[in-house]
Order: sequence, then structure tokens, then C-alpha cells
Amino acid sequence: MPTTNRQWFLAHRPTGLITPDVLQLTESPIPSISEGQALAKVKYLSIDPTMRVWMADFPQYMPPVQIGEVMRAFGLAEIIESRHPNFKKGDKVSGLTGLQEYVVLTGEEKRSFQKLPSMPFLSDTNFLNLLGINGLTAYFGLLEVGKPQSGETLVVSAAAGATGSIVGQLGKIHGCRVVGIAGTDEKCKWIKDDLGFDAAINYKHADWKSQLAAATPKGVDIDFENVGGEIMQAVLDRMNLHGRVVLCGLISGYTKHDPGLASFGQIIIKRLRVEGFLIMDYVLKFMDAGQKLGMWKMTGKLKDRQTIVKGLEKAPEAINMLFRGENIGKLIVEL
Amino acid sequence: MPTTNRQWFLAHRPTGLITPDVLQLTESPIPSISEGQALAKVKYLSIDPTMRVWMADFPQYMPPVQIGEVMRAFGLAEIIESRHPNFKKGDKVSGLTGLQEYVVLTGEEKRSFQKLPSMPFLSDTNFLNLLGINGLTAYFGLLEVGKPQSGETLVVSAAAGATGSIVGQLGKIHGCRVVGIAGTDEKCKWIKDDLGFDAAINYKHADWKSQLAAATPKGVDIDFENVGGEIMQAVLDRMNLHGRVVLCGLISGYTKHDPGLASFGQIIIKRLRVEGFLIMDYVLKFMDAGQKLGMWKMTGKLKDRQTIVKGLEKAPEAINMLFRGENIGKLIVEL
Repeated sequence: MPTTNRQWFLAHRPTGLITPDVLQLTESPIPSISEGQALAKVKYLSIDPTMRVWMADFPQYMPPVQIGEVMRAFGLAEIIESRHPNFKKGDKVSGLTGLQEYVVLTGEEKRSFQKLPSMPFLSDTNFLNLLGINGLTAYFGLLEVGKPQSGETLVVSAAAGATGSIVGQLGKIHGCRVVGIAGTDEKCKWIKDDLGFDAAINYKHADWKSQLAAATPKGVDIDFENVGGEIMQAVLDRMNLHGRVVLCGLISGYTKHDPGLASFGQIIIKRLRVEGFLIMDYVLKFMDAGQKLGMWKMTGKLKDRQTIVKGLEKAPEAINMLFRGENIGKLIVEL
Repeated sequence: MPTTNRQWFLAHRPTGLITPDVLQLTESPIPSISEGQALAKVKYLSIDPTMRVWMADFPQYMPPVQIGEVMRAFGLAEIIESRHPNFKKGDKVSGLTGLQEYVVLTGEEKRSFQKLPSMPFLSDTNFLNLLGINGLTAYFGLLEVGKPQSGETLVVSAAAGATGSIVGQLGKIHGCRVVGIAGTDEKCKWIKDDLGFDAAINYKHADWKSQLAAATPKGVDIDFENVGGEIMQAVLDRMNLHGRVVLCGLISGYTKHDPGLASFGQIIIKRLRVEGFLIMDYVLKFMDAGQKLGMWKMTGKLKDRQTIVKGLEKAPEAINMLFRGENIGKLIVEL
């Protein structure tokens, strides 16, 4: 039985990418659990752009992580000891484990964990991807905010990322023409050849804006926006009247001082509806969404993919990989 | 009978404010009219921020004015000669007269003119203000896009302008707490004391953001945005979850190279809905809106105010007055 818990603490707030002083790796004894608690060993950590937002000290949708706290992260863990009525040894749970090896489940609402159902066609990592935050974000963002109609044109940025790759496939399921924007030819090949996007555009090619125009001959009805900045501006320029912009993320700005600048002029001229959303607003519909996503996965209509980085010590560098666009699909740290 | 028509032509596209080279005043003979046409003498010209947009050469909701064309403008004119079945001498009409003294009504759809009804309690200028573009913009923007609920907090920028001053009063009629942002103490006094806004904030005072916070103790549910830039950002920072931003105008950016920059971050965090709109989408409801606005005006629930500049030759300078914030209420050039 191990006795030591390695944990990444937030030591300094970052100004750009995660420099070595930002997170500090510390060893401490694994806490003993009391009645009503359970101890879980973290197996996989979900590496998400929003972690960079949590590190910053401005008003946001959850409290920022405080200096000296274990860095917040989603993860998947296995119960190794339980004095909690709902969990038994061997159960797998997902939730806010934090960037650490062991986590105590206290039953408090704010750190609530979901016990994973046993589904033979789903791997553990699917629960951090298609059946986790990313699948639900794609599902509610596209279907409830974007409201795609058959025959419409959907553009997705960060299209080879965990969320974007699912958004595009959901768009195809709902009869849209789907155009993805990504940053490498390999990513473009994956979303077009394996995931069935109608077109994929590498924004690092000099002529990408004319490629975008050629790929959207009827304009753009829905922009599922994960990136912001210049990429968002180029998509706004292609939007049709009364188009919808699902504002999911603005990753291009998260490592900058002033995140998410873009021009509002097109919003007036084209009478666009831009709507921000967070999946926490749809908690009551999670079960229904999970069933649909699982069914699509089982029948081969939805694929997900992981980029796995091994070792807790690699977690800070994994966060930076996100902002450098070095992952395809979901970025996960395996412990 | 005069024979000369003075007209302002667009000679060069502006880069900032309207410099003397941008518009050129030319005299030409008043055209003679053919069967099916009518000749009208312009009495009042509506000076609107959108004129600056029309002068610029980027894709927009109407074709930009071309170099060598008479500058586009709304106006009110009186028929002085008619060979058109719908108009007789003495009729008053409103429509796109252009920045000139005489206009020929051709009956073409694109330059269609509305004959003004005779309403004893309305002056001519009301038809360019409360019963014109500004009243309709305020009405549809606030009621159809903003959807105010009684008890909600509404913030209006450019609140002493033609549109903003009506928006705030409509907000009061619909039971909102209404906070206006304007650029002089005189404007603030007018909207608070005469129009009944709950609070008015002069954004040129150093502590205006804390004044805004104090004036919106329950946050902001609707931002009726006419300005953009730093003012919009400050209001976004006060928005409540699921608030609505009615994106009507972005006057702070119209004389800049890159109009309408603001941060999208708050839109995600607070799940805001930002919606651009133009009143042309509501044409079929104009009659109904006009009746309601007229009724509110007659019963004293809505007031409008004009800043009158005399003389066609002052039109370019009048446009600049808008961007310098030198008008209270509707800015009109009287010929």
C-alpha cells in the first residue's frame, strides 16, 4: 500500500504559458479517511483549456484556483478504500480529482463524483471524452444553442480537438455541411477522412481564408467557436444573415493578457446571435445526452480519439501542449 | 420657383472624422419630372451614425455609398410638384432623400417614401425621431430582442442620443430599472430628471465604473448597446447570467480602422446572448409599433428631443457632432 500522494499545487499565477514556477510538485502522506469518505487512486487526468482560465485571477464561472491549492482538474479514479455507503473498492468514478495521485471523496456537493456505469463498448478514457465534458459540451452547445437544421453549413474551429471533433460529427448526424478548421495537415486529414467532415482547412496555410470561402459556398449558418481572435473573425466574415455563433471557448486568448478580442461589427450587420454557454446549465439532461452519445458511439456514428501523456510529472507540459496545438482529440495524462 | 439643387456628393472615403475633402457640395439644375414621378423639397435631414458606415467600403447591410454618388441620408420632404398618382402637392414624405435640397420620387422600391399621416400632436421632426428610425429601432431592439421583464435592470449606452433616450423610456414603461450612460452632465440631467431614468452616469467622470456598479446593485439583465469598446466592456462586466446584449450600434468604433472590438470572455462565463439586429427585419410590424409609439407620445409617456443644425452646408459638420457627442436627442439638419 503506497503512503505518499504526489500533488501539483498552484504556486504562481501564469502570465502566458505554464512556466516551471507556476505549478509545484509536492509529496505528502495519503490522508486516512473517516466515516462517510472514500479514497480513490487517480488513473487518468483530463487536460482542458479551461484549466488555464482557472489559474487566472479574474471573475469566472467557478472560483479561480487559489495560490497554495491543489490544481483543479477533471479526472477518472478508482476507489481503493471506502467508508462511504455509495462507493465500494474497485468502483470507478469521474469528477474533479485535481492534479494528484490520490483523492479523498468526501461526499460534499462541490466535489461530487459520478460512479461510471459498466459499458463494455466504452473504455475508461471515453468517460473523459465522448461521455465526459467534451461530449456533453459538443452535444448541448450544438443542439441546444446552435440548433442545426439539415442542409445548413456548420464551421467548427479547433476541429481536431476533443470538443470540436465531436461537434463536427454531431453536425453530420444532423444533416449539416461541416467544415473544420485545424492547425496541421495531419489533423485535417483525420477529421476529413476518418470523421467524415465535408472539408478541413489548415489555418496555417497562407490561403486558408480563400479555402474557407471555397468550402462554404452558401456561407456559414453556425459557427461553433472554440478559438476566437483572427480565426473567429474570418468565420464571422462568412456568416449568413441570422446565423448563430456558439461561443464555447476562446483558446487563442487564454494565454494572453486580454482574452477573446474580436470585432462585433459583423454581429450587427448580419443580425447574428452569439450565445455563450456552459454545460453546467444542462445538468438535468446529462443522462439523456449520455445515452444518445453512447448509442452513437456503439453504432460507429461517433468516434473519439485520445492523445495520452504518461506520468503525473508531465501534467504542466501537457497543459502547454493544448495551447501549442500538439494534441489530436482529447489530451489525457495517464498516471 | 428655384432651379438649382445643392447636393453633397461622396468624394473620398473618410479615415476618421469627416474632413473637408470627404464630401463635396455641388450645384446642379433641379431635374424635371416624368409621368409617374414627383419632386419634393427636403425640409429636414436625419443625421445618423450609420451614415459613417455607409461611407466606408466594407461589406455591410446596404451597399456602401459609391464615390461620386449623392450621400445617402434619411430625410423629410414636402411634395412641390407631382405626376405620381400617390402624391399630391403639399404631401409630406419621409425616406432616403439623400443629403440634398430636392429629391425626385421615382416610385422605385429601393427608394420608397412613406407619406406621413396627419397627426396633430406630432411635429414634422417627430417623424425622423420617435416615429422614425430611432423610435422603431428602440421599440424592436428592446422589445423583440431584449425582451425586458418587469423588475429587470436595463443599461443603455449613448443614452441621451435619439435611440438611447427612447430605449430608456420604453424600459421604464415595461417596468425595468433603467440606467443610462452618457458623456456630459447636461445629458445625464436630462435623461434622469426629464425622462425618468433611475440613474444616469457620465462616463467621462473618473469613477464612472464604480458609479455604474452602485447604480446596478442587482447586476445588469439587458445591455442595449449603442457604443461598443470600453463602455460595452464595463457593462459586460456587470451582466448577470443569461443576460441579453442588444447590439444596436458601436459608435465608438465607426471612425476607427477596426470597429467594435470588445472582449468575448464575459459572454461565455455569463452565458450571455448577444444579438445584432436591424429594424428592416421588422418592416411588417412597423404600423403596429408606430401606433403604440404615437399613443405613448400623446399620453406623455414618451418624450423626444431634437438638436437642430440649420443649413445644408452644415451637414458634414453635423455628422462629426454625432461622433463628438455634441447632440442631445436626435440630430437634425433643417434646410
